Amino acid sequence: MREVAIIGVGCTRFTELWETSFRDLFVEAGLSAIEDAGVEGETIDALYIGNMSAGRFIEQEHLASLIADYAGLASINTPSTRVEAACASGGLALRQAVLAVASGHHNIVIAGGGEKMTDVGTGDATDVLSAAADREWEGIMGATFPGLYAMIARLHMHRYHTTSEQLAQVAVKNHYNATMNPRAQYQREITVENVLTSPIVADPLHLLDCSPITDGAAAVILAPGEIARKYTDTPVYIKATAQASSTISLHDRRDITTLDATVAAARRAFEMAGVTPDEIDIAEVHDCFTIAEILAIEDIGFFKKGEGGRATEEGLTAIGGKIPVNTSGGLKACGHPVGATGIKQAVEVTEQLRGEAGKRQVDGAEIGLTQNVGGSGGTAIIHILQR
Amino acid sequence: MREVAIIGVGCTRFTELWETSFRDLFVEAGLSAIEDAGVEGETIDALYIGNMSAGRFIEQEHLASLIADYAGLASINTPSTRVEAACASGGLALRQAVLAVASGHHNIVIAGGGEKMTDVGTGDATDVLSAAADREWEGIMGATFPGLYAMIARLHMHRYHTTSEQLAQVAVKNHYNATMNPRAQYQREITVENVLTSPIVADPLHLLDCSPITDGAAAVILAPGEIARKYTDTPVYIKATAQASSTISLHDRRDITTLDATVAAARRAFEMAGVTPDEIDIAEVHDCFTIAEILAIEDIGFFKKGEGGRATEEGLTAIGGKIPVNTSGGLKACGHPVGATGIKQAVEVTEQLRGEAGKRQVDGAEIGLTQNVGGSGGTAIIHILQR
Repeated sequence: MREVAIIGVGCTRFTELWETSFRDLFVEAGLSAIEDAGVEGETIDALYIGNMSAGRFIEQEHLASLIADYAGLASINTPSTRVEAACASGGLALRQAVLAVASGHHNIVIAGGGEKMTDVGTGDATDVLSAAADREWEGIMGATFPGLYAMIARLHMHRYHTTSEQLAQVAVKNHYNATMNPRAQYQREITVENVLTSPIVADPLHLLDCSPITDGAAAVILAPGEIARKYTDTPVYIKATAQASSTISLHDRRDITTLDATVAAARRAFEMAGVTPDEIDIAEVHDCFTIAEILAIEDIGFFKKGEGGRATEEGLTAIGGKIPVNTSGGLKACGHPVGATGIKQAVEVTEQLRGEAGKRQVDGAEIGLTQNVGGSGGTAIIHILQR
Repeated sequence: MREVAIIGVGCTRFTELWETSFRDLFVEAGLSAIEDAGVEGETIDALYIGNMSAGRFIEQEHLASLIADYAGLASINTPSTRVEAACASGGLALRQAVLAVASGHHNIVIAGGGEKMTDVGTGDATDVLSAAADREWEGIMGATFPGLYAMIARLHMHRYHTTSEQLAQVAVKNHYNATMNPRAQYQREITVENVLTSPIVADPLHLLDCSPITDGAAAVILAPGEIARKYTDTPVYIKATAQASSTISLHDRRDITTLDATVAAARRAFEMAGVTPDEIDIAEVHDCFTIAEILAIEDIGFFKKGEGGRATEEGLTAIGGKIPVNTSGGLKACGHPVGATGIKQAVEVTEQLRGEAGKRQVDGAEIGLTQNVGGSGGTAIIHILQR
């Protein structure tokens, strides 16, 4: 099993990009990563593209061919693969790219992720996103993702005395972090009161407990670990890639206050990397709703089950705290172009481990973790990165 | 790079399966492959799922989680990955599964492919399929796949004197082969006259030059080559996996009578396997339209460019000919559930190499090839299998 390293990263602005098409988003992120890595286009052996639902957002499938073409790689017939796992599509693209390099079939590989969500071909964005849940048992009953996560939040509050204020603190922290991230969709601070007085979307979740609809793309370039220093003085090594599934429907879970897929993926990732949660210096987790960040920091093992809300309230997940979480602003404030998110998490962690995160830099960060979730937890993908 | 072998195969009936849901199709194919391999569910390390457009056909994404769940693998959190490359999604699932085993990350892996095409949520099937072409430059002009392949056929006829009768012979041969395949959608013979008197869909392509709309799923089980004989006396080794991209749009090609992606993938595959086209005993190629089989047998290198029509007319691609092509009946007569096709090709070749193909058995077949195409040639995936 060959070691794999990240040798370049790129990311577009995350926001409503009305003048930028789907293909332009990917090309911008990819070229930016290529420039960062200092590789030539001809040396790229393969592309992996994470995207959830261009079929419905812009009525375009066969995305890997499209992106290889518009990236100028069709003339050299570069193999290009699209993967999909709902909102975990980006993390999945990274993982498949890692396996492709680890297998020895490919050397220099791009993993990109993106979503164009402000153009909606069929239905509205909430309807398109609901296809990540079980259409026959959840969608048909009118369940949308705010509704599903609201049920999770309600039980977590009941069982562990997690409060609406604690959920709000996740959003407040992530908005604050986003003020220091020039790529973020919402570069402005909010208060707990702002969250609690924002409209209810699905009780107990307010508007400001929810991640937004966003356009954006991100890309990383991988190389075998043994040649990474040919390209960069600051390679970031992928010490673990782990993926796990759980039931797609919430009602089939043994417990909805734990995402079993996250627990299983985290266990596999820590074992593969040979580290413990205490050794992680920085984490980007999947805060599609504020409750999702609470679940993540518990299920990964940073805090005991039920203590995520209090830990957030006490500032333990802020920059300068025990384990800084979502320094990018997270899905909540950096934005959540669903297919891009898993790759953007790796971009953020890479920049932190290189010491290039500007005002939001976590001093001395050496080991970082990304957690990307599909649906209400049917898929979880975890990577551990080390400088 | 570890060697990889197929240790089990499974396939549903290919036809209009009105009473069978998308999830049931996959589970049927997967369980049949598991039974064939004699493995236990708990030993399965990962699933790869090929599907083009469940997002639009049945408004369901996050398919890998769904299938892992309904296959009973959610309780052990088996990682499950969906890949998409339009009609090459099945071949792509096989390829990613091969890389996952070759990388050393996984041992026993299922690669499945399927499509439920008779249920259409948004638009009609032709409209859904047109998303495999460039939406902004082809779809918007009204181009559908029969139209795109008709343009290819017209130029091939003009340049190489390929005739409508020769195209029809592809359909006649594949329908004849399908009479011996109990899984095939159309198990009945047709004549050249039947083809030529069937309605024109897109001149010069008649209705019987076109593959049908089909429901179906197929699955294969992979293991590292060195332990394959623990599970089966008849392992089939994957000697090459190759993938290539080309421009997604037809109008951007240097020549539309050659699929450059097929040429590039074939070159890579033959180099990896260390064999020549003459050494291939049997091939399943992507005959979505009759002209596509002509292109395939030329671009792979079985015949010189321009001689595919005559070779077909002379029976060189029939069972008993120089290189039997599409013994399953191909996409034309076995049916074309788009995400399933690439896996079904591997199932057919595996059964032939094992000597289990019944009445359509090619005597002494030792090396087989599969060619799976996405769109009008934006993606091509080739595998070479050896018993």
